[in-house]
Amino acid sequence: MNCGPTLQQLRQAAERIEPVVRRTPLLESPLLNKQLDARIIVKPECLQVTGSFKIRGAFNKISCLSETQRKRGVVAFSSGNHAQGVAYAARYFGIDATIVMPEDAPAIKIENTRLYGAEVVLYNRYTENREEIGEELCASQGRSLIKPYDDPEIICGQGTVGLEALEDTKRLGVTVDQILCPCGGGGLISGIASAASHLSPSTKVFAVEPKNFDDTVRSLNSGQREIADASVRSICDAIVTPQPGELTFSINRTLLSGGYVVSEEDVLKSMGIAFREFKIVAEPGGIVALAALIAEKGLSKNSTSLIVVSGGNTDREIFSRALKATALHF
Amino acid sequence: MNCGPTLQQLRQAAERIEPVVRRTPLLESPLLNKQLDARIIVKPECLQVTGSFKIRGAFNKISCLSETQRKRGVVAFSSGNHAQGVAYAARYFGIDATIVMPEDAPAIKIENTRLYGAEVVLYNRYTENREEIGEELCASQGRSLIKPYDDPEIICGQGTVGLEALEDTKRLGVTVDQILCPCGGGGLISGIASAASHLSPSTKVFAVEPKNFDDTVRSLNSGQREIADASVRSICDAIVTPQPGELTFSINRTLLSGGYVVSEEDVLKSMGIAFREFKIVAEPGGIVALAALIAEKGLSKNSTSLIVVSGGNTDREIFSRALKATALHF
Repeated sequence: MNCGPTLQQLRQAAERIEPVVRRTPLLESPLLNKQLDARIIVKPECLQVTGSFKIRGAFNKISCLSETQRKRGVVAFSSGNHAQGVAYAARYFGIDATIVMPEDAPAIKIENTRLYGAEVVLYNRYTENREEIGEELCASQGRSLIKPYDDPEIICGQGTVGLEALEDTKRLGVTVDQILCPCGGGGLISGIASAASHLSPSTKVFAVEPKNFDDTVRSLNSGQREIADASVRSICDAIVTPQPGELTFSINRTLLSGGYVVSEEDVLKSMGIAFREFKIVAEPGGIVALAALIAEKGLSKNSTSLIVVSGGNTDREIFSRALKATALHF
Repeated sequence: MNCGPTLQQLRQAAERIEPVVRRTPLLESPLLNKQLDARIIVKPECLQVTGSFKIRGAFNKISCLSETQRKRGVVAFSSGNHAQGVAYAARYFGIDATIVMPEDAPAIKIENTRLYGAEVVLYNRYTENREEIGEELCASQGRSLIKPYDDPEIICGQGTVGLEALEDTKRLGVTVDQILCPCGGGGLISGIASAASHLSPSTKVFAVEPKNFDDTVRSLNSGQREIADASVRSICDAIVTPQPGELTFSINRTLLSGGYVVSEEDVLKSMGIAFREFKIVAEPGGIVALAALIAEKGLSKNSTSLIVVSGGNTDREIFSRALKATALHF
């Protein structure tokens, strides 16, 4: 049994990442609250540096490498948000970064990763294995692999999202009944659930996943790590991991209260609602937690939900589809 | 000569509005900075409660009414953002609000004003006089008129945007060379310029206006209040006032360093850049300050500019146009 990082470990991570990470605000829409007859508080990590929470874990991890390790450079494999986080953190430390990215990742993610100064190696998501490519690069060049989620320092870094949100809701005098959080490999939610276990033990934490990539939800039900069919396509590119991480799942099976699965239609609709009600740009994989509530999954009248919006790196084409998918009032 | 509210008056306003107003964060895009070879810091008031800064002045003004005045209710005329601010503040105090709005205001603004519980009276922007309609309502019902900008308490409330931004940049150790701010009647910019005159006297403040509604820019040049042709149409509905306010202009002529005029094309392009780089939803009238920089107006290499994004209440149709107007990199 693993209950994740201690409060002290989370706080140390928060101190480490403080020079580069933005404390994102909490957002709320009185009109949406009225319509749902519940209180929805959004933690918009799309407003984070690099457009997603991923800089938190990447920067924490690279900070924890020894000077000698760091100088040799880093490697990461990522659908795009972790890529940008690692590239940005590497630039901060003035070290080399090579990022292995799927060739069908959103153009903005590949482009930004290059603009942050990293070398990008593209691979085919459906025929090649990114872990193998990444490990080969490490072996041949002596670099450190910055894993996307299954690493204690990554989990600690991502957990600072929960630390901030629960400190800020406490300051507002608000008790959070539940946290809904997007779930790919499980790094973000395992860190947040750990923070909640220390700061607000009565708060329930739920994973939200897109249809066809509900490996964590199924794993929570079965008690063992289930596999998703990685050949299926999804607009939620940020969270289409084929299996929960070993370490993240050992935390999540202990700390999570369950999970929800959402359709692409509800995801697009929720991007439009976030546009209208919160004035934020969310990417499909980043908005699944709101999609769950909009589909009336996990929504109790008069309850208070904290919704993590994990990223906003979306292309114009997808966002235009989202604007069309949302009626003026849903 | 009028130099606007004192620092103490601004701080008192900040205290008054604290229960309902959100302290919006500062946003920055390393990629945009790199591209413009300058530092751009955004104060996103689109993330404010009601989707614009207007709640600040409206709430401050209504707080300053006597109990007896407040009970009789309030009236406002507004293209939409002040309307929502007044409606929301009135609901907070549990009093009646009647808002006079142009019939061609964005649907979202009219709808939200009603959803906040205000009564909406529509008028024709091109044939009727909103001031007359508003004053008649006050005379017949004994209500207080909450002016959109030409009022000391409104200016104080809006000025808290500058107070927050300059406190936060100071905390980051950043010296702001210039502030660029959207300008309609001049309430927001006169408040911000007042805050800057106290907290950062070396910071220059510039007004930005859309083509055809450059009444403040022309007035700054001529030294007297010039008039814009209110029959012309503009997508920048939030700032299409026909003339600078008397009080606001007396402050602005003393404290502003000048102004810039932007095209609708640059406005749409900037909405797309804000989408891409800051993950925020800005409305046309709210993003004119960024549009000025993008058009290389008022942009000095290596300088630090604070850009006020004043609101985000835009319809899907306009936003879709903005997404199309923006190349992947401008």
